Amino acid sequence: MVRENEVRAGEVAVAPPPPNDAGLVFIGRIHTPWTSRLEAPRQGQPDGPICRIEVFEPWVTALDGLENYQRIEVLYWLHLSRRDLVMQSPRNDGAVRGTFSLRTPARPNPIGTSIAELVRIEGPMVLVQGLDCLDGTPLLDLKPDRAGFTPLAPPQRGDSRVADKQ
Amino acid sequence: MVRENEVRAGEVAVAPPPPNDAGLVFIGRIHTPWTSRLEAPRQGQPDGPICRIEVFEPWVTALDGLENYQRIEVLYWLHLSRRDLVMQSPRNDGAVRGTFSLRTPARPNPIGTSIAELVRIEGPMVLVQGLDCLDGTPLLDLKPDRAGFTPLAPPQRGDSRVADKQ
Repeated sequence: MVRENEVRAGEVAVAPPPPNDAGLVFIGRIHTPWTSRLEAPRQGQPDGPICRIEVFEPWVTALDGLENYQRIEVLYWLHLSRRDLVMQSPRNDGAVRGTFSLRTPARPNPIGTSIAELVRIEGPMVLVQGLDCLDGTPLLDLKPDRAGFTPLAPPQRGDSRVADKQ
Repeated sequence: MVRENEVRAGEVAVAPPPPNDAGLVFIGRIHTPWTSRLEAPRQGQPDGPICRIEVFEPWVTALDGLENYQRIEVLYWLHLSRRDLVMQSPRNDGAVRGTFSLRTPARPNPIGTSIAELVRIEGPMVLVQGLDCLDGTPLLDLKPDRAGFTPLAPPQRGDSRVADKQ
């Protein structure tokens, strides 16, 4: 059941501090087939519809080299989400769980992360599959999926450090 | 080679728009063994040192249920990073690539994402392995790793939609 910003039975909302510890800039916009939260998928699929990630200036230059990666991590701002829930009821059945144990969009900092399959790049447009966000979602960042990325810079001392005995 | 905020040969910086499209709240602080960028690992390892993620009030309640997951996604704010580079030289050798094709901390919105192994939760402290950030890094979010998470709410229409023929 999709939340339309109501607080459900059993859920707990808090009075959060003002969100002014750091500021974000929207660097683009994501175009998807989903214009309603009632239709969007729960989780994107690698064979899902092709979505278009539009990158704004002055950031288009920063796409250079992204075409080398098959899978990219997409960060975006879940602009319609409430931010004050600490306990939530995904099924709206009175059973609640903590927000950090869910991938719900309603969170103190509503940042969505997805791993998408790169289809191709056309100028400022990055075409991908695997997203599940609404049409018009503000873009925050793009980076290669960690699983397919090897740092170009040399290793540092911390790379070889392991845990002490527990 | 670790950046100490210099702009290197071949790199391109832009005049970014002010970062006031959305605001973040720091919901905790991450305690790691690394106090200098010269020592931190390039990428966290699942057998790395145990790090302590401290969650602030009023968000501690939201940890309920997180103990059910072995791997968690950690989002944090790379508070020491410059935000204006679109082309970067990871080896400081004049060869440059776009910021979005790198997992460098210097990005328009310096948000770090890691997948960490949950060790245990002690009140407001989440003990994990696999991080690579500096001691004192501000926490933005915690959620179950997508690979180990099944939505509790029922599927929606969009879940079964596949791509049109290309």
